[in-house]
Amino acid sequence: MGIRVAVAGASGYAGGELLRLLAGHPEFELVAATAHRQAGQPLDAVHPQLTGLDLVLAETDPGRLAEADLVFLALPHGESAAIAAQLPAAVRVVDLGADHRLVDGDAWASYYGGPHAGAWTYGLPELPGQRERIAAATRVANTGCYAATIILALAPLIAAGAAQPADVVVVAASGTSGAGRAAKPHLLASEVMGDLSPYRVGAHQHVPEIKQATGATGLSFTPVLAPMPRGILATVTALPAREVDPRTVLAEAYADDPFVHLLPEGRWPHTAATLGGNSCHLQATVDTDSGRLIVVAALDNLGKGAAGQAVQNANLMFGLPETTGLSSWGVTR
Amino acid sequence: MGIRVAVAGASGYAGGELLRLLAGHPEFELVAATAHRQAGQPLDAVHPQLTGLDLVLAETDPGRLAEADLVFLALPHGESAAIAAQLPAAVRVVDLGADHRLVDGDAWASYYGGPHAGAWTYGLPELPGQRERIAAATRVANTGCYAATIILALAPLIAAGAAQPADVVVVAASGTSGAGRAAKPHLLASEVMGDLSPYRVGAHQHVPEIKQATGATGLSFTPVLAPMPRGILATVTALPAREVDPRTVLAEAYADDPFVHLLPEGRWPHTAATLGGNSCHLQATVDTDSGRLIVVAALDNLGKGAAGQAVQNANLMFGLPETTGLSSWGVTR
Amino acid sequence: MGIRVAVAGASGYAGGELLRLLAGHPEFELVAATAHRQAGQPLDAVHPQLTGLDLVLAETDPGRLAEADLVFLALPHGESAAIAAQLPAAVRVVDLGADHRLVDGDAWASYYGGPHAGAWTYGLPELPGQRERIAAATRVANTGCYAATIILALAPLIAAGAAQPADVVVVAASGTSGAGRAAKPHLLASEVMGDLSPYRVGAHQHVPEIKQATGATGLSFTPVLAPMPRGILATVTALPAREVDPRTVLAEAYADDPFVHLLPEGRWPHTAATLGGNSCHLQATVDTDSGRLIVVAALDNLGKGAAGQAVQNANLMFGLPETTGLSSWGVTR
Amino acid sequence: MGIRVAVAGASGYAGGELLRLLAGHPEFELVAATAHRQAGQPLDAVHPQLTGLDLVLAETDPGRLAEADLVFLALPHGESAAIAAQLPAAVRVVDLGADHRLVDGDAWASYYGGPHAGAWTYGLPELPGQRERIAAATRVANTGCYAATIILALAPLIAAGAAQPADVVVVAASGTSGAGRAAKPHLLASEVMGDLSPYRVGAHQHVPEIKQATGATGLSFTPVLAPMPRGILATVTALPAREVDPRTVLAEAYADDPFVHLLPEGRWPHTAATLGGNSCHLQATVDTDSGRLIVVAALDNLGKGAAGQAVQNANLMFGLPETTGLSSWGVTR
Repeated sequence: MGIRVAVAGASGYAGGELLRLLAGHPEFELVAATAHRQAGQPLDAVHPQLTGLDLVLAETDPGRLAEADLVFLALPHGESAAIAAQLPAAVRVVDLGADHRLVDGDAWASYYGGPHAGAWTYGLPELPGQRERIAAATRVANTGCYAATIILALAPLIAAGAAQPADVVVVAASGTSGAGRAAKPHLLASEVMGDLSPYRVGAHQHVPEIKQATGATGLSFTPVLAPMPRGILATVTALPAREVDPRTVLAEAYADDPFVHLLPEGRWPHTAATLGGNSCHLQATVDTDSGRLIVVAALDNLGKGAAGQAVQNANLMFGLPETTGLSSWGVTR
Repeated sequence: MGIRVAVAGASGYAGGELLRLLAGHPEFELVAATAHRQAGQPLDAVHPQLTGLDLVLAETDPGRLAEADLVFLALPHGESAAIAAQLPAAVRVVDLGADHRLVDGDAWASYYGGPHAGAWTYGLPELPGQRERIAAATRVANTGCYAATIILALAPLIAAGAAQPADVVVVAASGTSGAGRAAKPHLLASEVMGDLSPYRVGAHQHVPEIKQATGATGLSFTPVLAPMPRGILATVTALPAREVDPRTVLAEAYADDPFVHLLPEGRWPHTAATLGGNSCHLQATVDTDSGRLIVVAALDNLGKGAAGQAVQNANLMFGLPETTGLSSWGVTR
Repeated sequence: MGIRVAVAGASGYAGGELLRLLAGHPEFELVAATAHRQAGQPLDAVHPQLTGLDLVLAETDPGRLAEADLVFLALPHGESAAIAAQLPAAVRVVDLGADHRLVDGDAWASYYGGPHAGAWTYGLPELPGQRERIAAATRVANTGCYAATIILALAPLIAAGAAQPADVVVVAASGTSGAGRAAKPHLLASEVMGDLSPYRVGAHQHVPEIKQATGATGLSFTPVLAPMPRGILATVTALPAREVDPRTVLAEAYADDPFVHLLPEGRWPHTAATLGGNSCHLQATVDTDSGRLIVVAALDNLGKGAAGQAVQNANLMFGLPETTGLSSWGVTR
Repeated sequence: MGIRVAVAGASGYAGGELLRLLAGHPEFELVAATAHRQAGQPLDAVHPQLTGLDLVLAETDPGRLAEADLVFLALPHGESAAIAAQLPAAVRVVDLGADHRLVDGDAWASYYGGPHAGAWTYGLPELPGQRERIAAATRVANTGCYAATIILALAPLIAAGAAQPADVVVVAASGTSGAGRAAKPHLLASEVMGDLSPYRVGAHQHVPEIKQATGATGLSFTPVLAPMPRGILATVTALPAREVDPRTVLAEAYADDPFVHLLPEGRWPHTAATLGGNSCHLQATVDTDSGRLIVVAALDNLGKGAAGQAVQNANLMFGLPETTGLSSWGVTR
């Protein structure tokens, strides 16, 4: 018998992608998938792409989750801390929500509000030393989807002293699944198709998370909602700290990482190439006119930005090869 | 060492999806991927979603293909017959093109033109007795993508005497990847996005193929290009031949088929739920006003409609479980 | 001073398009735009495309509407009858909702339910004699958007004895704005983009309306939601009643209609070409295999299918040239 | 008789939009529309949205163009200089191409290459004093579409000493029509839908044009291709030069401009709201974390970014009210 897995919050987009990945995972065995309003529904009524996977969504009950060896929490922000607190220490937990990402309680207060649940091990294995910390942890906080994209682009450059941390400018666009599955007027297809719309300009809650993970000290971040269901494209620019080819820095940083791909020179990342996989594509250059470093990163917000990353972390936590049940290949082109 | 596989025509959309499936297949080992104009290119320059798959596209040379145990031909219509004729009899071949689908030379002449290469075993395992024929064959003709969708919806109803074969009306819409990767003005994103456009109305080349496989004697088929990259939705209507619930007929016909799913009553197939998988979703009803039988089928034109179907056929040809390396799950929702 | 106009239900998609058309109309002067939940909001907060149009949405109050010479009701189905009943007879009213379309109370009951408000003059000027009836009316019922598309394709063929009325098969796809602006989960961009999904298969409420206006006696209609914000494409097939070129029939029927365009042979209608205009594009052929007549119609569901048609009707009701303030040209291509 | 107008390059996207605007313009009378490969085609075969506009595309012949009072050149970059040189001085010309935008021959050489045709009056009426210069000119160079968007966002802030000119960072995404109508593989719908892809990162040819018009001295510009047919969204960030509310600066700069709308606080521009109109929507804030000024601008690349701007310039050149034949309203929402 495999490692018993439960997914809380299985009715959302990240939850659905997680179930798809788990259905193909050779070591993890799904024993429970829970939801709130959708509890009692057959899974394929909620996730028709999983038609044929015979399962009924259960109520999100800590007792039920506690029977698993591994629990994924894919709950709305602010709801996982209370559930997590009721799970036995021996149960390994990966939280896809924001509750346990920030070390700084003040940053939590100003960007999220409400009580600060404290920080868990940060779930980005590609950060220096982090793979080992995750392997040793029983509680791991998955990153934000924008945060994963931007951190993968930026962290090595600051760490290597190649980029100045003080004046980082990021514009990133996300597909709509990043905004969740709640029926909100601005997320209607009639509003989104054919449209690009910025939101929370200069005030997005992933800012403190990105600063914490990269060491950036000043960060301007403008998020944009894009007319596509999935994918994040981040353009990250920073002033150079010394003369260096940013490609060299990134190539060294990710030489041994199976899911982060620095593209050959001249080819730029685009989101579709990462859809359905767990990869992050990167490219970098020096701006002709301004001399700024520009790094572009693309990933699937539900893949490497959420469910894929969560499985990657769980693999590490159980001593499995990091790539177990995950693919680097995108589904489209 | 596994079964050695070559893919001719690897630069197109079906070729790319085939390579993705082969990369995850436990028994098939890719030994060559060939192309025409793109020969010499690294694979990931042509298919960025396969970044990390280290391979260079070779010239499409029958000698090279002949070294494989299994050859997939994903060439433009009209080009596979010549290549296939040069492959040794012992090499198993699955042709994703149209060249070997039609038994009737006259139908070939009037819908395709040019010399008729003759028919191979028809590659739709879900047709009665076809699974066994495919298993015994060394040459299999994959179906057209529209044809697969429409045949799966219609064949059992005519076979069971539930639908009249004489006045079948089909309207089906396809995503743009079905039209191939050649740069044609009407396939530009600026033309397609926000647009639905019919084409070859009442004159599509899949009509004789559908009639051949279903026994329909009169078939009106209107294809429509839809603003999405992948997926086919077919609405098939026929006059009832006797009083019968079409759901019952379909449920019986596909009871043992792993990839064809008759949805629970009240839930209708939609294309996104099949994206990236090898499934076909079906639903049927009797029209309130007209009494016509209506069957709706959805599948991924590059999945069950092309590359997935090809792998399914190849699995059968090599005595592997039909589902090896294939998934029923869609990638999105 | 021009003709004073009020729009009730200005916050929806049809309402917004109506306001845009009225802003450019030389004779109609907008004096009130009302809404329900959005009352009190500045117009451009609700319709950002009308930024610069200085207006505050008022409560939908019959007293306020009664001060206008012309009232457009763009309310949810079932809500306009009550409002209309409180408007003075001298006020001309165009109802964009369904309440006053059907003559047959039983059809109303079985497709809509609730009390039947009775029929008004049917607002499709292109039907024989209808232009004159609309000009003489003070109450006009705009057609359904699917209904307009399908009736324009079908009515002349049945009227001319060219098509049999008994076995008409229609499949039509609509952009999402046709489903209104209420935030429903299945209308989320994440669900719709990349997807085609049928709904109310064989049971759509426009069936009795289409039969009433065309004389069809048996009608199978399958609606499909398409991944685009606007536009309807209808494929209408019928058995021929006599040997006739359907193009000839349509050319004669619409020879004098400024907004209905039979395309030159070989060019098929597509939705994008009608976006933002008041035109309907038509093409017809005889199916090669089945001999069925196939007519394809495209229009903008918010244009000729709703707001444009409403202005066209109002022009007639006030003795203005039918094309006043309307354009045949689409905005895209 | 009105002002006689000819359009050279009428078969492209900007040309088509220009014809649509001219068809509704009360003073300009279209006397010729020319094309290259499409010469001889009926207009509506090339622009089906203009079905009903009875016109045949002529060859692009300077002699024919010279008979008009006003010529719009909507030709590929590099082709308008030669044509323009053959037009009489009395004929007013608006060039939608890049040939006459740059004053600096070196900048032309390094970003475009080939001979520098010299600069015409720059066609952005909203720049200080520019409206008068355009009114006095017989030759006007329309701006680039990205350039228009970014200049409208940035120029007033630098002019007012509110933003530093030295470290401006811009990320802007455009719909596909901005890339023209030539059939290129990367513009295929199958490639673009569901995808965001950056291109010419840090090396786009609009950089010198933006610097010339705004006074920026260092500019990092990353363009992104977005999955929508039309619209540009630009995020412009700059370091503040003094303590000032950027909204105040923009409000003053555009107080009298009919087509530039600073949105009410809290509402951000999005592209769909500008589709089909000649407006540019703006919003600005100060980034919480970095203190940078952020201005977001949205416009329709074929409207205010090309054809609408061209008509606006032509209106000025003929002493007509600037808004003649133009609308501020977007077509969608």
